[in-house]
Amino acid sequence: MGNWKNRRAWLRALSTPLPEDLKTPLETAVFEADHFFVSRGEKTRVTFETDKIMGEAWSFSRIEDGFRIKGGETGILYGTYTLLLSLAASGTSEKETAGIPFAADLEPEKVYSPCYPLRMLNAWDNMSGDIERGYAGRSIWFENNAFSYDPERIRQLGRMLASAGINVLTINNVNVFEPAQELIGSLLPETAAFADLLRPFGVRLMVSIDFSAPIRDGLSSADPLDKDVKEWWKNCADRIWSAIPDFAGFLVKADSEHRPGPATYGRSHAEGANMLARAIAPHGGKLVWRAFVYNCMQDWRDTATDRPCAAYDLYHPMNGSFDENVILQIKYGPYDFQVREPLSPLLLDMPDTAKAIELQLAQEYTGQQIDIFAMAPMWSEIFGQMGKNNVQAIAAVSNLGRDDCWTGHPFAAFNLYAFGRFGWDPETDPEKLTREWVRLSFALSPSGEDQLTELLLKSRDVYEKYTAPLGLCWMVAPSTHYGVDPWGYEFSVWGTYNRADRESVGIDRTVNGTGFTRQYPEELCRLYEDRESCPDRLLLFFHRLPYSFRMKDGRTLIQRIYDDHFEGYEEVLEMQKTLQNLNLPEEDRKEVEERMEKQRLDAREWCDVVNTFFCRLSGVKDEHGRKIW
Amino acid sequence: MGNWKNRRAWLRALSTPLPEDLKTPLETAVFEADHFFVSRGEKTRVTFETDKIMGEAWSFSRIEDGFRIKGGETGILYGTYTLLLSLAASGTSEKETAGIPFAADLEPEKVYSPCYPLRMLNAWDNMSGDIERGYAGRSIWFENNAFSYDPERIRQLGRMLASAGINVLTINNVNVFEPAQELIGSLLPETAAFADLLRPFGVRLMVSIDFSAPIRDGLSSADPLDKDVKEWWKNCADRIWSAIPDFAGFLVKADSEHRPGPATYGRSHAEGANMLARAIAPHGGKLVWRAFVYNCMQDWRDTATDRPCAAYDLYHPMNGSFDENVILQIKYGPYDFQVREPLSPLLLDMPDTAKAIELQLAQEYTGQQIDIFAMAPMWSEIFGQMGKNNVQAIAAVSNLGRDDCWTGHPFAAFNLYAFGRFGWDPETDPEKLTREWVRLSFALSPSGEDQLTELLLKSRDVYEKYTAPLGLCWMVAPSTHYGVDPWGYEFSVWGTYNRADRESVGIDRTVNGTGFTRQYPEELCRLYEDRESCPDRLLLFFHRLPYSFRMKDGRTLIQRIYDDHFEGYEEVLEMQKTLQNLNLPEEDRKEVEERMEKQRLDAREWCDVVNTFFCRLSGVKDEHGRKIW
Repeated sequence: MGNWKNRRAWLRALSTPLPEDLKTPLETAVFEADHFFVSRGEKTRVTFETDKIMGEAWSFSRIEDGFRIKGGETGILYGTYTLLLSLAASGTSEKETAGIPFAADLEPEKVYSPCYPLRMLNAWDNMSGDIERGYAGRSIWFENNAFSYDPERIRQLGRMLASAGINVLTINNVNVFEPAQELIGSLLPETAAFADLLRPFGVRLMVSIDFSAPIRDGLSSADPLDKDVKEWWKNCADRIWSAIPDFAGFLVKADSEHRPGPATYGRSHAEGANMLARAIAPHGGKLVWRAFVYNCMQDWRDTATDRPCAAYDLYHPMNGSFDENVILQIKYGPYDFQVREPLSPLLLDMPDTAKAIELQLAQEYTGQQIDIFAMAPMWSEIFGQMGKNNVQAIAAVSNLGRDDCWTGHPFAAFNLYAFGRFGWDPETDPEKLTREWVRLSFALSPSGEDQLTELLLKSRDVYEKYTAPLGLCWMVAPSTHYGVDPWGYEFSVWGTYNRADRESVGIDRTVNGTGFTRQYPEELCRLYEDRESCPDRLLLFFHRLPYSFRMKDGRTLIQRIYDDHFEGYEEVLEMQKTLQNLNLPEEDRKEVEERMEKQRLDAREWCDVVNTFFCRLSGVKDEHGRKIW
Repeated sequence: MGNWKNRRAWLRALSTPLPEDLKTPLETAVFEADHFFVSRGEKTRVTFETDKIMGEAWSFSRIEDGFRIKGGETGILYGTYTLLLSLAASGTSEKETAGIPFAADLEPEKVYSPCYPLRMLNAWDNMSGDIERGYAGRSIWFENNAFSYDPERIRQLGRMLASAGINVLTINNVNVFEPAQELIGSLLPETAAFADLLRPFGVRLMVSIDFSAPIRDGLSSADPLDKDVKEWWKNCADRIWSAIPDFAGFLVKADSEHRPGPATYGRSHAEGANMLARAIAPHGGKLVWRAFVYNCMQDWRDTATDRPCAAYDLYHPMNGSFDENVILQIKYGPYDFQVREPLSPLLLDMPDTAKAIELQLAQEYTGQQIDIFAMAPMWSEIFGQMGKNNVQAIAAVSNLGRDDCWTGHPFAAFNLYAFGRFGWDPETDPEKLTREWVRLSFALSPSGEDQLTELLLKSRDVYEKYTAPLGLCWMVAPSTHYGVDPWGYEFSVWGTYNRADRESVGIDRTVNGTGFTRQYPEELCRLYEDRESCPDRLLLFFHRLPYSFRMKDGRTLIQRIYDDHFEGYEEVLEMQKTLQNLNLPEEDRKEVEERMEKQRLDAREWCDVVNTFFCRLSGVKDEHGRKIW
């Protein structure tokens, strides 16, 4: 596995290597608490009280010489990490913790429990060691079509996930390539050994499965209504849970982007999902079914088909027809992890179906862990609009890899941490969370801390400004998804068109157009339907508009496009300057500055290409005479 | 190597497997002549007279019961193939050969000799078994980073090359990837064994070398003026020629598209090439130096740099400074194997430097052996304009691979055959050559033969019509180079821009623009400089023009673009109909029809996307009301 340097991300305060012999979350909690205070030269005592019924929940109280943490089996561990990190972030010594400064956020005796019982990190790792849309090096646990890892690194991974509050890890790509089907077959002992390593951290495994797996095993069909197929999955589940008693369940991408699924047999997604769900239900397993289904062979000449409509059209009629242990996993927007999309209407509907919202830490379309893009403010908007109770679980595509810093860009670790915290409390204040992560990760001066916090908080706005304008999406380089290409997706099969011409740009998705707005509850539908009330940043997602359209602030649409792009680039220059003055550790500084320079060049390209593209089409010059090529 | 079916391409008439024990071209000639007539049930006798001094030249005479062929060591073999193929193409039996019908082209007693002493096929095979820009399957002789072949297949390859008159095979990609450097190092015995297999067919080996090879071998530099480097190459050459006495020489891609070269050491290409040339000169080796050098990291905002200018600007001042055994290999156009380019001005200049013209049988930008594109008419234009004596050698990128039919599309074999024939006579009549190849390859009715001949002859015009208009080039999908993408290369680093906007399209390459026209001799310069005299099909290569520009026939530029594209697609439909009625052998028919349907879809995309692109920009509708999307 070569030599890796444990950079520990936000866990600077937990520097003691984890021993091999930890078996339970309680043992881990005891170990972490002991070593935390020893390493600080403090004598604080922590005692624990397990109350199984509390599960993941926990509370704490002050005792004379320290703390008492009470919680369920994993609750104790979450409580320990939360408390220790709170103390670490506060930066105070034992003497000063009488008031537990940063634990000002933590109330003694209050019961803390996660908003969502499933907080799932979906790793898109192939067993080859490649990671689909991975931007932080190769897989941490696969190589050469086998498990291959340094156990110490997996323990550190468990520590990181638990400290953020994440409790499920899906270990393989949703596109299940050979031989990943064997993770629940001939490789089950190895999968179980891997699960053992993460169990002391309260992290349970999930596996992405291949819907056609029975055929691979010699059956003539994978028809979900076929008796032999049902039996095959039942036996499969029995074997899995006898090897891994706390196995979490299956993640399934079916009938999507050329993946096999129930449609082959004329069966519905409900029939496909329920068959699998019934096989695993006796074991308490969850069946997570991805709702990322659309026509990925669209003819660009076809203007009636509108990809954002696809998932709702398909799944909405199936409300209530899924078994109780099925979770429909829905991407936050109706497209695919673009920088700015409206909330997926499916997330506001299907009240009788359990749903998970799918986020993407891997910055596929949002700078690939080169460009800085802190997601907490975006998620805050999303959960604010969705309401936290519209989903029952939270999932995110992982941004982890074998890089020493774990996440390509050292700052990208914030998205992993923040994801876990949002799983506990989707109403988390992004600013507070950002500042906490900054404090945990770096030892900056108060002003440096302010600057980095502010930089992260506005990073999404900046990225949005210099890339695709006003919710237009998809002006990105095909295949790689890094860098600008305004018409790279325009004449393709992917349903991703801006239909710009010399007069206008955008797709009319109102009731006079593709009718996508109808999928929203009435109030939202009205908001988006009217080009006057539609938020600026989604204007071109919902409307086709002439370049001369007057925005709310009096600017024309074309001028707003130019302004945003020029401003976005200017803001990147400011970010670069801010970073140069930040007192980061040498190894982080080097990575951060290298990537910042790449981001600057990337932003320059986006700005110049998008402005040139629209200038060539519209013939309109920038009002302020700035250079358009 | 698995089972391959020897489809024999145009060598239907030579059906006897080649024995292992042929050692010389004469033995091959004797074998081929004997078995040819036996397989036809004829008793014709062929006798041979070797006259070493004739080299590759040959002549023949009629004798009472057959033919007498006289020639040099390889001349005898070329004469045999030419005569046998001529008889095969004539379709007559022995009794009727008194007049030798198709040998009406062959005059008794006339000495036939090749126009170019080097007729080089450049295979871009990597030792992994992949072929860069290969469209006919994997490498015939490499796999798993080693030589790996069926000797019978290599003999058949030799037979095909010899029958077309090709005498040099470069066996590895000009981009030399590991471990191909070892072909002239530790793998030299295997390279020599491979050379042995092709020697009976008069085919000599050439190897593409890595300019930095000495460094790989432990030297501190590859500086061509360094004494140790010179010594290294000299020793290398001595070893090669002692293993392969008829080794042909080296092919070098240096300082091009990120390949190493003399520029690293501040040395000129002449210094780099001459150093290598001197190492191999004592052995009679040729040093072929590719002139495909340009700035492949151009900023699209930079309108002063113009890629077509690059090769001439760099090499022209070096006229006469290359050693005698250096050959500068120059692509036929100043860009890169586009469907329509003007002749490279470098080919009309550098009178004191030996030059090779580089053609590309591999249809990288011309349909990838899916779309039909017979090249003979294009080459006829090229040689007509260049004059055959402006170059001293001819080279072509191979279109061969492990497919049973050798060339992906069965018709693509014509390009290989025609290339060899152009090497002997660049004034060959394309129509006669096409008909000859059709007769050799298929047993069609006279009307079928006419139809296929006509289809092949117009195939380039058709392809040109439905793809990039009027010499504009590069509206192709980046990376893959198959399919349409009008702005796929527009904001890239490759120097390949059309700079279309709502008024105009094209690059001004006149003296008022980038000045590229100045690189041509005065008369040509004047022709291209004036938009009135510039040939229509090169109009947008040389000029930036408004869509309203009036063409010679009165149509506007934009209307001509639309017309060409609609017509090109209609002509593809006609081609498809023609092929459906052609009596091809079943295995060919299947491949041909499958590919024809792909070509039809490809043409539909090109037509619709290019027309839509220009319609969105120009706002001009088609005069005839045809559908633009």
